Amino acid sequence: MSSSTDTELLYVIKIGGNIVDHPDLLKQCLTAFSNIKGKAILVHGGGKMATQLAKDLNIPQQMVEGRRITDAETLKIVTMVYAGLINKNIVAQLQSLGVQAMGLSGADANLIKAHKRVHASIDYGFVGDVDEVNVSMINHLLQQNTSLVIAPITHDGNGQLLNTNADTIAQSIATAMSEKYAVHLIYGFEKDGVLLDIKEPSSVLQHMNKDKYQTLKEEKVIFEGMIPKIDNAFLALEKGVKSVIIGKAEIMNELIHGNAGTTITQS
Amino acid sequence: MSSSTDTELLYVIKIGGNIVDHPDLLKQCLTAFSNIKGKAILVHGGGKMATQLAKDLNIPQQMVEGRRITDAETLKIVTMVYAGLINKNIVAQLQSLGVQAMGLSGADANLIKAHKRVHASIDYGFVGDVDEVNVSMINHLLQQNTSLVIAPITHDGNGQLLNTNADTIAQSIATAMSEKYAVHLIYGFEKDGVLLDIKEPSSVLQHMNKDKYQTLKEEKVIFEGMIPKIDNAFLALEKGVKSVIIGKAEIMNELIHGNAGTTITQS
Repeated sequence: MSSSTDTELLYVIKIGGNIVDHPDLLKQCLTAFSNIKGKAILVHGGGKMATQLAKDLNIPQQMVEGRRITDAETLKIVTMVYAGLINKNIVAQLQSLGVQAMGLSGADANLIKAHKRVHASIDYGFVGDVDEVNVSMINHLLQQNTSLVIAPITHDGNGQLLNTNADTIAQSIATAMSEKYAVHLIYGFEKDGVLLDIKEPSSVLQHMNKDKYQTLKEEKVIFEGMIPKIDNAFLALEKGVKSVIIGKAEIMNELIHGNAGTTITQS
Repeated sequence: MSSSTDTELLYVIKIGGNIVDHPDLLKQCLTAFSNIKGKAILVHGGGKMATQLAKDLNIPQQMVEGRRITDAETLKIVTMVYAGLINKNIVAQLQSLGVQAMGLSGADANLIKAHKRVHASIDYGFVGDVDEVNVSMINHLLQQNTSLVIAPITHDGNGQLLNTNADTIAQSIATAMSEKYAVHLIYGFEKDGVLLDIKEPSSVLQHMNKDKYQTLKEEKVIFEGMIPKIDNAFLALEKGVKSVIIGKAEIMNELIHGNAGTTITQS
């Protein structure tokens, strides 16, 4: 749609449970977020708090074929923990760091419309797959110098909230916003990035393009859990995202400045 | 600041536990809200859900001199229930009714700054008293045809969330927004309005001004719990709110149109 040279920068940053559960690391990460020059969106996952709350309330977590099912009671829990507790605490902390943060779920201002997952054999319950991101509203809020903090809860437009994967939300927002911004998508997780030697944190690959990825896959250097993550990264790049950076959430500052993690680009 | 004749209408509507806890009544109330011509803000209380969750989690609710104390665990609960569960369910329902609803706490976009309550003898814990309402941000969002759904959680600007009375939040927003709007503040509660005979719901007084209030207080027709409510209403009127309507939340449509409840005005 537009050339990257004159479009505004937007960072879409996803952080997960490993950081959300640790107040000190979270603070460090939010401080890095607060120093971003340019527009920024933070998408957070849930951490262990939702699992713990379900346990405390004796709500059994159903697993089918290794996947968690979101029944009505579990939906209540994730809505409370993600959109309430975690979201508002992050917002309050960012506000204290001088960021005009606004915490929203996908239902708010119809930011992310989704549908209940349809699957041939498994009923995932109230799990949502993203249909549409409200680009104009997000753009409008960013232009007010508001930084958005997004909880991984969406809605179906018919009054039903849906539990949605935070990685997917980050990717959906990043690709949708590429229409108007030069988007850098950062996935903060527990590893240092793509490792050439799984046992050696210092073996992190600084840069990876599609050719390199193919080679590393063939050589079985990249395998298992990393493959869907990286496939998703390339999908985002194909849809217009400028770069995808994956690395350790607790050194977010270095990730933002490209001094750590693995930067993934098309070519 | 401005004359009422040419300023835009804004409804600030507060609903409490009696309606939030009953899905059918809530739906009716939200349908009435969705039919409002003009700008609208909904402030919701918590209902019994927070109390129930505390009970289920074995978190004792401390009361000191008849007032509930918000300790750290209770703050987590109200943040989850008010800003998460209730707020997002109301937003999703309003979206399904065609309202561009956005659910926010006082921390979001720094909408409501508060301070931890200072009291000579009681430590209320994480209870906030309102300092400032972000009029320009609320105005901006309303002008985008967004209807705001506000959860009674505020922040102190230093990263601390605070539990804040929903009636007070509604009043603070209503008075602050009177700078720019002709504000009608509606308190939906469990009674039909100001009753001339406490045992007779049909004895609701349609209109009350300050003189009438003085008389009714002297005659002991109005007493106890109603007095602080009505004192607050007159305080709001003195600060620029056009009218305060109190009545049964479940007939919100009639309250909005002035066909039920008690309308309180200065003169």
